[in-house]
Amino acid sequence: MRARDLVSDFPTVTLDTRAADAARLLAEHGLPGLIVLNDDGRPRTILPGTQVLRLAVPRYCLDDPALARVVDEEHADAFMRGLGERTVRETLPEQPRELPIADGDATLLELAALMARTHSPLVAVVDDGALLGGVTLQALMGQSLPH
Amino acid sequence: MRARDLVSDFPTVTLDTRAADAARLLAEHGLPGLIVLNDDGRPRTILPGTQVLRLAVPRYCLDDPALARVVDEEHADAFMRGLGERTVRETLPEQPRELPIADGDATLLELAALMARTHSPLVAVVDDGALLGGVTLQALMGQSLPH
Repeated sequence: MRARDLVSDFPTVTLDTRAADAARLLAEHGLPGLIVLNDDGRPRTILPGTQVLRLAVPRYCLDDPALARVVDEEHADAFMRGLGERTVRETLPEQPRELPIADGDATLLELAALMARTHSPLVAVVDDGALLGGVTLQALMGQSLPH
Repeated sequence: MRARDLVSDFPTVTLDTRAADAARLLAEHGLPGLIVLNDDGRPRTILPGTQVLRLAVPRYCLDDPALARVVDEEHADAFMRGLGERTVRETLPEQPRELPIADGDATLLELAALMARTHSPLVAVVDDGALLGGVTLQALMGQSLPH
C-alpha cells in the first residue's frame, strides 16, 4: 500500500485565511491539523492546532504559567479573541524544518517515520507537487495494525 | 469556565499497557493522545500518537528517510508489528519536561497556554492528583470561539 491509497479529502487553508477561521475548522471537524496551501495551490506545510493556540495566547502567558492564572475568568474564557484579524501566515513557525509532506508513492513505513520525525499526526500527500489529500495518524495506524 | 467544566471521559493506559493496545485505542477512537496513569491511578503524562509511531519505526528509518524507502512494501505495510511486546513505559520520552496536566480550576486561557507550550492537543485534568478527565484542543477552541 502507498500513501495515495490512504489519502482522504482534507480541509485546506491558505496563508491569507484568518486564523480564527482556521480555528473554527479545527474545532468543528475535530481535525489534528490543517493543510496550508501556497498561492499556487500546492501544499506548503501542515498547521497543527497547538500552533493556532500559540497565536491566541498572550506571549506573557506562554512564558510564565503564573501570569495566565491572574487573568480573570471572563477574559480567559474569550482567549480565542486574541487571534484578532491575524492570518494563518502569522501562525507558522519562522524556522524551516522538515515538512510533513510525502509523495503519493511513499510506503506506510515512510509515512510513519515522517510523522514520528516531525511530530505531526497529519501528512499532506502530493503528486508532482499537487495535493492528493491528507493521511492521518489514525488512518495510518488503523491500516497497519493486524485486524 | 474552568477545566473541570470542560472535561470528558477519556481512555487511559498504564505504563504496563502493551504499546500495540495503546495504538489500537488511538486508531479506533481517533484520539489525539492517551492519558497515562501511574500505579497509584494518578495521571503521569499524556502519550501522543506520534510517540507510539516512534517506537514502531526502526531507528535507522527515523535517522535517514532514504533508508525507510528501501524497505519492501509488504514489510512497510506491517510496520506496526515493530512494536512487538513492548509497553507504554518504553514509548515515553526519558527527558522530563512540562507535563500537559492541569488542575480542575485552571481557566481556558491556562489550558490554552499549557497546550501551546507542551505542543499537546490533550490535557489531563486532575483534582488533588486524581484524574477528572481530559480536555481536547477541539473542545477548548470550540468553547472559546464566538458562537
